[in-house]
Amino acid sequence: MRKSIATVSVSGTLTEKLTAVAAAGFDGVEIFENDLLACPLPPEEIRARAADLGLTIDLYQPFRDFEGVPRARLRANLERAEHKFRLMRRLGADLLLVCSNVSPETIGDDGLAAEHLRLLAERAAGHGIRVAYEALAWGRHVNEYLHAWNIVRQADHPNLGTCLDSFHILSRGSDPLGIEAIPGEKIFFLQLADAPLLAMDVLQWSRHHRCFPGQGGFDVAGLVRHALNAGYVGPLSLEVFNDHFRQAGTGRTARDGMRSLIALERQLQGVAHPSVPSGFAFAELSGTGSLNGVLPALGFARTGRHRGKPVELWSQGAARLLVNATGTGPEPAGAVSPGPVVGAAASAGPAHAAGAGPGLVAIGLDNPDPGRAVAHAESLLSPVLPRERAPQDAPLHAVAAPDGTEIFFCDDAWLADFAPEGTGGTGATGATGITHIDHVALAQPPHYFDEAALFYRGVLGLQPQESLEVPDPYGLVRSRAMSTPPMSTPPGSTPPGSTPQEPGVRMVLNLAQVGAGQPPPQHVALAGADVLAVARRLRAEHPELLLPIPANYYDDLEARHDVPPELRELGVLYDRDPNGGAFLHLYTVTVGRVFFEIVQRIDGYAGYGAVNAPIRLAAQHHGSRTEPPMMSE
Amino acid sequence: MRKSIATVSVSGTLTEKLTAVAAAGFDGVEIFENDLLACPLPPEEIRARAADLGLTIDLYQPFRDFEGVPRARLRANLERAEHKFRLMRRLGADLLLVCSNVSPETIGDDGLAAEHLRLLAERAAGHGIRVAYEALAWGRHVNEYLHAWNIVRQADHPNLGTCLDSFHILSRGSDPLGIEAIPGEKIFFLQLADAPLLAMDVLQWSRHHRCFPGQGGFDVAGLVRHALNAGYVGPLSLEVFNDHFRQAGTGRTARDGMRSLIALERQLQGVAHPSVPSGFAFAELSGTGSLNGVLPALGFARTGRHRGKPVELWSQGAARLLVNATGTGPEPAGAVSPGPVVGAAASAGPAHAAGAGPGLVAIGLDNPDPGRAVAHAESLLSPVLPRERAPQDAPLHAVAAPDGTEIFFCDDAWLADFAPEGTGGTGATGATGITHIDHVALAQPPHYFDEAALFYRGVLGLQPQESLEVPDPYGLVRSRAMSTPPMSTPPGSTPPGSTPQEPGVRMVLNLAQVGAGQPPPQHVALAGADVLAVARRLRAEHPELLLPIPANYYDDLEARHDVPPELRELGVLYDRDPNGGAFLHLYTVTVGRVFFEIVQRIDGYAGYGAVNAPIRLAAQHHGSRTEPPMMSE
Repeated sequence: MRKSIATVSVSGTLTEKLTAVAAAGFDGVEIFENDLLACPLPPEEIRARAADLGLTIDLYQPFRDFEGVPRARLRANLERAEHKFRLMRRLGADLLLVCSNVSPETIGDDGLAAEHLRLLAERAAGHGIRVAYEALAWGRHVNEYLHAWNIVRQADHPNLGTCLDSFHILSRGSDPLGIEAIPGEKIFFLQLADAPLLAMDVLQWSRHHRCFPGQGGFDVAGLVRHALNAGYVGPLSLEVFNDHFRQAGTGRTARDGMRSLIALERQLQGVAHPSVPSGFAFAELSGTGSLNGVLPALGFARTGRHRGKPVELWSQGAARLLVNATGTGPEPAGAVSPGPVVGAAASAGPAHAAGAGPGLVAIGLDNPDPGRAVAHAESLLSPVLPRERAPQDAPLHAVAAPDGTEIFFCDDAWLADFAPEGTGGTGATGATGITHIDHVALAQPPHYFDEAALFYRGVLGLQPQESLEVPDPYGLVRSRAMSTPPMSTPPGSTPPGSTPQEPGVRMVLNLAQVGAGQPPPQHVALAGADVLAVARRLRAEHPELLLPIPANYYDDLEARHDVPPELRELGVLYDRDPNGGAFLHLYTVTVGRVFFEIVQRIDGYAGYGAVNAPIRLAAQHHGSRTEPPMMSE
Repeated sequence: MRKSIATVSVSGTLTEKLTAVAAAGFDGVEIFENDLLACPLPPEEIRARAADLGLTIDLYQPFRDFEGVPRARLRANLERAEHKFRLMRRLGADLLLVCSNVSPETIGDDGLAAEHLRLLAERAAGHGIRVAYEALAWGRHVNEYLHAWNIVRQADHPNLGTCLDSFHILSRGSDPLGIEAIPGEKIFFLQLADAPLLAMDVLQWSRHHRCFPGQGGFDVAGLVRHALNAGYVGPLSLEVFNDHFRQAGTGRTARDGMRSLIALERQLQGVAHPSVPSGFAFAELSGTGSLNGVLPALGFARTGRHRGKPVELWSQGAARLLVNATGTGPEPAGAVSPGPVVGAAASAGPAHAAGAGPGLVAIGLDNPDPGRAVAHAESLLSPVLPRERAPQDAPLHAVAAPDGTEIFFCDDAWLADFAPEGTGGTGATGATGITHIDHVALAQPPHYFDEAALFYRGVLGLQPQESLEVPDPYGLVRSRAMSTPPMSTPPGSTPPGSTPQEPGVRMVLNLAQVGAGQPPPQHVALAGADVLAVARRLRAEHPELLLPIPANYYDDLEARHDVPPELRELGVLYDRDPNGGAFLHLYTVTVGRVFFEIVQRIDGYAGYGAVNAPIRLAAQHHGSRTEPPMMSE
């Protein structure tokens, strides 16, 4: 299907927008009136610019407060419309969006509205222009799409049709099934936007919180299916008002929009997701110095060395950590990180991981067909990383996530690049029962949180949960968990203390809105069969590695739950879910830009201990500095 | 009255919060449980710390989901309460806040709730503790303050009273008059928060958008008056959840809260505002180089020179601009600005004005008693600027605004510091009919927008209007106008083309949420008797100084209004208000960090041409660079 986007959906001047939209592969644009008014180019030049870029101008919008008005106002409104028709001819646009009237003076009389729209359509026809009438969710009298269609039907003019907008329909909870009652040829245009499910004034919700399909909570694909069933043949057009998109990179947002439409098309075609990972192959950390102390303490042993690069493989159970020695030690801020070793110095690595010692730079995901997975990611506009490698190395299939983390798709071939070390290799002090990587938590850059959610959903097939907000002493951390379906093992299906056989992949995306400035650390959460045993060992041998948890936390925990007193001694945190699942977890101190969590899921606990996150964040601030950072005024 | 604040209202760790709250002059604190749980100090040490700082612990909060529950849950809840009572004894707190139950399992039976609360109060009494029961606005069954009071009355226990919270009462639209039906001694606590008037889910509204009294849209003082009439004698306690305060400076927010309570007390005492300015005495600009071209072009003449400092006075009508020569030319970013000259190098000047050529650093406000005005500002915790000056200079009375702008209170004495220049002095090319300063627009730093609103309201007596959001090509600008009452001359009271005799003071506070990084420029808006004449002169003599306005804007303007074609030729913008008022305005290009607007208010127009602001912002971006700033991805 043709793909279009309203210019209001991306940042920049009109000419920047057109350039970026064309580069992202869109076929057409809706010209949002304010973008045109602020543009120094005359309409003829905008028309030529769009044509040069291969873009059609599919819609001019919006034309407001036209129909159902007193007679004197009607004359003025028709006069105003004539101005716009002349402008549209200069611009080469032949479809005008008319939004249902929101003015206090409009009269709630469908016959009158139909009469006025018929007059408008007749005038439009004289200019070769068609009119698409849309019910705004906050229209004064007309705010339901079937009501708007009824008026269009009553007006009965070939140059008048309706425009459907997924936000206006779904935000009101209207059933989109009714779209199939509209003849396809009378649906002149289809605008698509998603949104998080918020309980707020619909106008503010629409103007600030829309997002691209697949980033929010609406079933946009289901709505499009009804339009296709009705016979709609026009473009799928994105129209998004979003405070973050307004501040984000023009080209990046345009590509994000295109990614959302490609994913939507796949969903409509019922294409099964080709690259859902079955687990973590590895997590790759830059920098060895400090990590050499932590990993053996956690029971990891160095089990391999890359045959051609300075990278070590540390393992325990199915948990594998790669340590990239080229990133050792603190670097000056802004230095170009050497990048993940498995990726063969493919990129500069995540911005948040550079310049402050060890960081999480890449993750490997188990996938039976890495070539197919990377092709899928590429089809969703993910940057594929260069595959430079020695001839004897296994092929590498990797893309960059929006946050800069490198994502490798792995069958087992990559392990052959590592020469095994004998048992009892350097640093091995005995396993602690860690079985696999439970999840990784990745810090996201500002303004790209929705993009990240769509990436991990569309490219990796993870299912997002609702966003949470976690208080930090100096702000809030917005946090969204995503995981492979099913998100949890059903309660009771595994005995207490055991772990499910197929853990899948879980991730947590964090966006820090924190005054202290530093981006929050990333972390790797390791699943342990017995967190208390890990804690006892750390307490005995490396107490300096355990993040100290305040006694006040345990006073409260013991007021709420019947827990063993040992938790307090060991610094282990605890949560329960409403289904009876329980969660034990502990944290190491932060090393460079990364820390480790050891987690134990009991009786199908499917969360992440979010209730304890404020305690952890405060403890990290206490541990990371002696001077309060925010006393400067 | 005693003044208290909940620790959740400011950022930081608990010890940072206590220190800042004491430094701001509060008498006591509410300890918010999460702050205590995350604190590594035991309760006894927190108690000692507070006592050392001279703070009482007035409340421990919140205790949730206690009352109206099934029997098994009641036992667990009483057990949980016992834990908290023991903790409170260690902490030295003797009042516990119990919020109305939000749990799905609670039973809507007032008798049962009263019975449970009576049990709780009886247990509390054994510890010397009292319980204050509060209706949360989103409580499951109890969400009105009179309902909570009814249950307290029914429970009838001396250790049980009610807690009133202005947000919970006013957000639901409840009439606070009913407070007077509650015996004062049964109002155990009074929590105060204001909020902007938003149409959204009340829980989200409460958790993210509360602000200090005087910063939002509620009549908090009116509510307090009812509580005092009822006989309430406890503290006024601020309890604010605000995403910006969480990220702002701890001490700064604490002082802001204290300022709001002082202003609230004044309001309750019916103290008339002692320092409402009657007009602008001057605006002071740093840097002369480029300004020397602009000011004569606008019809200003240099009419004086400071007798002891390198500062010039430029005048036209009652509009006076001071030009501080020590700030000439661009400075390296981060350089310490020499500060306003009238202020005698008192401070580093506004952060936004430093480092990029001419900027707006100070304003002078006409005030008959500058000494009294500065004393008032100081009583509201505004930093008073040092008064270093030569012995022969007039006394200076100035404070720093939250955004760094220096505010001078002026009678006419300051003019004597300037030696007059002869008529036809340097740069004078004939007046253009500018009569006075209409308004100044000041860029605000992030996270302190509410503080600024309270400063200009409380210290200067300006009345705020609702916030607007104005689209910029690379984000949004939040904008709030404030002015001396009355905000406008009534329509028809002045003939078209004339200006009111007593213009008062108008200001616009702007907060840029813009990806491009640079703070938005400040501007000085000058009232002209004939903007078209000013425009003609600029067009003829200095066309390079006029901000170019796109022809597309005029195509649209002419579709909406019957305006003379000359506006298009001259680059003059136009607006009308619903009362028939009209507004003509034009903009100069930006010089350094400042630009000028010439405005003409016709028939009582009281706005600021906000509808045209997106056009101006886009034109400024077009003018200020050739490379798009946001294409880096």
